[in-house]
Amino acid sequence: MAVRTMEELVSLCKKRGFVFQSSEIYGGLRGVYDLGPLGVELKKNIRNAWWRSLVYERDDIEGVECSHLSHRLVWKHSGHEDTFSDPLIECKTCHSRMRQDKMKDETKCDTCGSSDLTDPKKFLLMMKTNIGPVDDGSSFAYLRPETAQGSYLNFENVLLSMGRKLPFGIAQHGKSFRNEITPKNFLFRLREFEQAEMQFFVPPETDIEWWEKWKNIRHQWWLEQGIPAGKLRFKDHEQLAHYAKCATDIEYEFPWGFDEIEGIHDRQDFDLGSHTKSQEDFKINAKVLPNKDSTTRMSYRDPFTGKEFIPFVIETAAGLDRAMIALINEAYTEEKLPNGKTRTVLKLKKHLAPIKVAVVPLAKNNPDIMMTGMKVRRVLSELGIGRVVFENSNNIGKAYRRHDEIGTPICVTVDFDTLEKENHPVTVRDRDTMEQVSVNIADIGKYVKKFYSRETPQQDVERLYQFSKMKEKGRE
Amino acid sequence: MAVRTMEELVSLCKKRGFVFQSSEIYGGLRGVYDLGPLGVELKKNIRNAWWRSLVYERDDIEGVECSHLSHRLVWKHSGHEDTFSDPLIECKTCHSRMRQDKMKDETKCDTCGSSDLTDPKKFLLMMKTNIGPVDDGSSFAYLRPETAQGSYLNFENVLLSMGRKLPFGIAQHGKSFRNEITPKNFLFRLREFEQAEMQFFVPPETDIEWWEKWKNIRHQWWLEQGIPAGKLRFKDHEQLAHYAKCATDIEYEFPWGFDEIEGIHDRQDFDLGSHTKSQEDFKINAKVLPNKDSTTRMSYRDPFTGKEFIPFVIETAAGLDRAMIALINEAYTEEKLPNGKTRTVLKLKKHLAPIKVAVVPLAKNNPDIMMTGMKVRRVLSELGIGRVVFENSNNIGKAYRRHDEIGTPICVTVDFDTLEKENHPVTVRDRDTMEQVSVNIADIGKYVKKFYSRETPQQDVERLYQFSKMKEKGRE
Repeated sequence: MAVRTMEELVSLCKKRGFVFQSSEIYGGLRGVYDLGPLGVELKKNIRNAWWRSLVYERDDIEGVECSHLSHRLVWKHSGHEDTFSDPLIECKTCHSRMRQDKMKDETKCDTCGSSDLTDPKKFLLMMKTNIGPVDDGSSFAYLRPETAQGSYLNFENVLLSMGRKLPFGIAQHGKSFRNEITPKNFLFRLREFEQAEMQFFVPPETDIEWWEKWKNIRHQWWLEQGIPAGKLRFKDHEQLAHYAKCATDIEYEFPWGFDEIEGIHDRQDFDLGSHTKSQEDFKINAKVLPNKDSTTRMSYRDPFTGKEFIPFVIETAAGLDRAMIALINEAYTEEKLPNGKTRTVLKLKKHLAPIKVAVVPLAKNNPDIMMTGMKVRRVLSELGIGRVVFENSNNIGKAYRRHDEIGTPICVTVDFDTLEKENHPVTVRDRDTMEQVSVNIADIGKYVKKFYSRETPQQDVERLYQFSKMKEKGRE
Repeated sequence: MAVRTMEELVSLCKKRGFVFQSSEIYGGLRGVYDLGPLGVELKKNIRNAWWRSLVYERDDIEGVECSHLSHRLVWKHSGHEDTFSDPLIECKTCHSRMRQDKMKDETKCDTCGSSDLTDPKKFLLMMKTNIGPVDDGSSFAYLRPETAQGSYLNFENVLLSMGRKLPFGIAQHGKSFRNEITPKNFLFRLREFEQAEMQFFVPPETDIEWWEKWKNIRHQWWLEQGIPAGKLRFKDHEQLAHYAKCATDIEYEFPWGFDEIEGIHDRQDFDLGSHTKSQEDFKINAKVLPNKDSTTRMSYRDPFTGKEFIPFVIETAAGLDRAMIALINEAYTEEKLPNGKTRTVLKLKKHLAPIKVAVVPLAKNNPDIMMTGMKVRRVLSELGIGRVVFENSNNIGKAYRRHDEIGTPICVTVDFDTLEKENHPVTVRDRDTMEQVSVNIADIGKYVKKFYSRETPQQDVERLYQFSKMKEKGRE
């Protein structure tokens, strides 16, 4: 199930320490947010799941982390300086400004109703900042409006330093900045936001095949994060950007309806073709601006045929802030209990849960229980599974409720049995089933570690072993 | 040992895929860098080690992630708008600008020697950018020059949403931006850089005690990352910033001499006192600007005494880019081998190594070896230990040399023995000792997992168990 309204989602995020308005005590900054203690963990976990699936579990993608400030020429040749703008109309009466394509009625001001309006003007969505000691506007850098360009610019660097062959990809996550005229829908349309983008470089004739592959791989990833298939759909772009050969969005059903959560684009040779020097040496398919500024050939020489060409790019571009609201929204559950009461549970997949374990001492006024609880927390916090907290609220029902609401998969309770009984059992309570099991204190580290380890590795070791066995038999 | 010159370090970083100049193909942007495939992993590992030691392994620190764009009033009340500037002199002849305090001779231009100079002017180090649809300079945000203010601003949010009591801290890492007039020393003085800062909130009378504690904790952390004690020193600030009661730097011996790698500051009640509303209700120790803008009391009410006061702050502020060069520099080793040759090894601690395992197939033209190698890589890449690569260079000596140079702690080689011998052994070769051991293929996952697991947890489980035993005995 999901949150019913956007307001409910926003309030949940603030109250529980996921998301706060940026610069809140000074009235806030529109379209800009801070992540609180739980939000920062959730975002890290989403980021890591993305990175892991692309960089660690595949063998054909390299990671990079490029700067937020970048040279003006990057955005000239990427086409952003010319085209990355919205049409803006100003009301001559009340001076409010609005996007022409979003106005309720193009002949009247949305705010005051006056029909004394300016002609539409191009409004650049990139933010720029002065750099260097001369502040006369001559020396500025743009804050990147996307991470992708940094990956393109380093194509040659990565190719050479890592000894890569096509096809291979470059993955990057990080903040991007767009001066949106109307930030909206909480974390959906922001002025400062985090992207997780991957550029996959392929030989020209294989682009469609890879575009299809990446659509499936990325769709699968969202399912693995806990979004049910029925809440996702592909939506092909009806109007293609000038650089795109084909483009589809993976859309998620947000509280306000289906909307983009990731884009999968076949960008052809537009990007490397735009940034390469000696453009005349190549047959560039896409329409690119002439480039006399680049110092580098952004090309690839096939080691077998010796032919040099500009690789095509398949891009997968996801929004991590959008991922956060989608995943919180999807995990939010209100459950009727047998006793007639309702409980709220955030059923995040365990690899995404902000807090991995809460250790709950049953009796605050018993120093042995407190001390043992703290030691258990200490042991668990060193397992490398993520955040483990000592939940010192002196009310076990309240502690369970709180951790259900923030999605903590297990609570470990230390009580009088732990002190008195043989083997000193602690109680492990499961968020989703609410079942409780007793675990000997000396085994709790192992138990929790197993709970958080993925099952794949051991299966694969088995497969690998079987594989060798089979080969052996084949030889006999 | 260490790299001999700065140039050697820069060249190593580029060639091996650690660090590239940002916007390089367009001539680069001074003081701004990109991280390549190895740099991004090293940085992630340093960041994680820092986060882990503060947020995961302690129980008194919360993490946050605040926006890069922030409200002008934040930097007015923090004092940055007034004081975060350098004195700049311009040459009227050649128009070059220089920092007054860094000029070779204050009566002459460093560039052309002219003595026709302007009076010094305050040059603001913060970068600003227009935000919102009106571009007349009235509506702008600053790019944060430090992460600390975001943590202060969320003091109340974190306190309430996480139910905290003093003392507790807020940790944050992320990019900051300073328009340095003279970026220098590679990753040392940058215009865009990453900080790892922690603000620890304490009752006023306990500040010195905590300042001393944090000095030791942070010093210890650097040792654990692989910096020898002899290359670190504390340097107390001779001139204190206006907000500081005491301040010390942890300095590392860079190729150009000892220089700051982290600062530990007792900032008193300056920060919360500057940002609180109703300043007149508190006895604020530090000299703060009057604040009529804040909407929030940045105070704490002691649950036992009921007294409300402004907490003091102990700050630990480390530079992650500086950490990168320090750690690469320190790890760089040239070793004389018994055969008279020299090998280069990057002896990074294994938790920091960018690549955790390289799987090396001995014979490229043998499909069974290749296939088995790929399967081994697959198994190891799913262990959750970080990056594992398939090193397909067809020359085992070259593969070992390359991975010594980039600091890969172990290589796993698949050869004919793997195919033919009982239990299909693979060879594990250690970077530092160059020793090789044989491991059955079915055990390689377990072996590598053990190699990368820290020893503490099991020890602590033992301690915990002993503790319970002891308590039991105490009762008998």
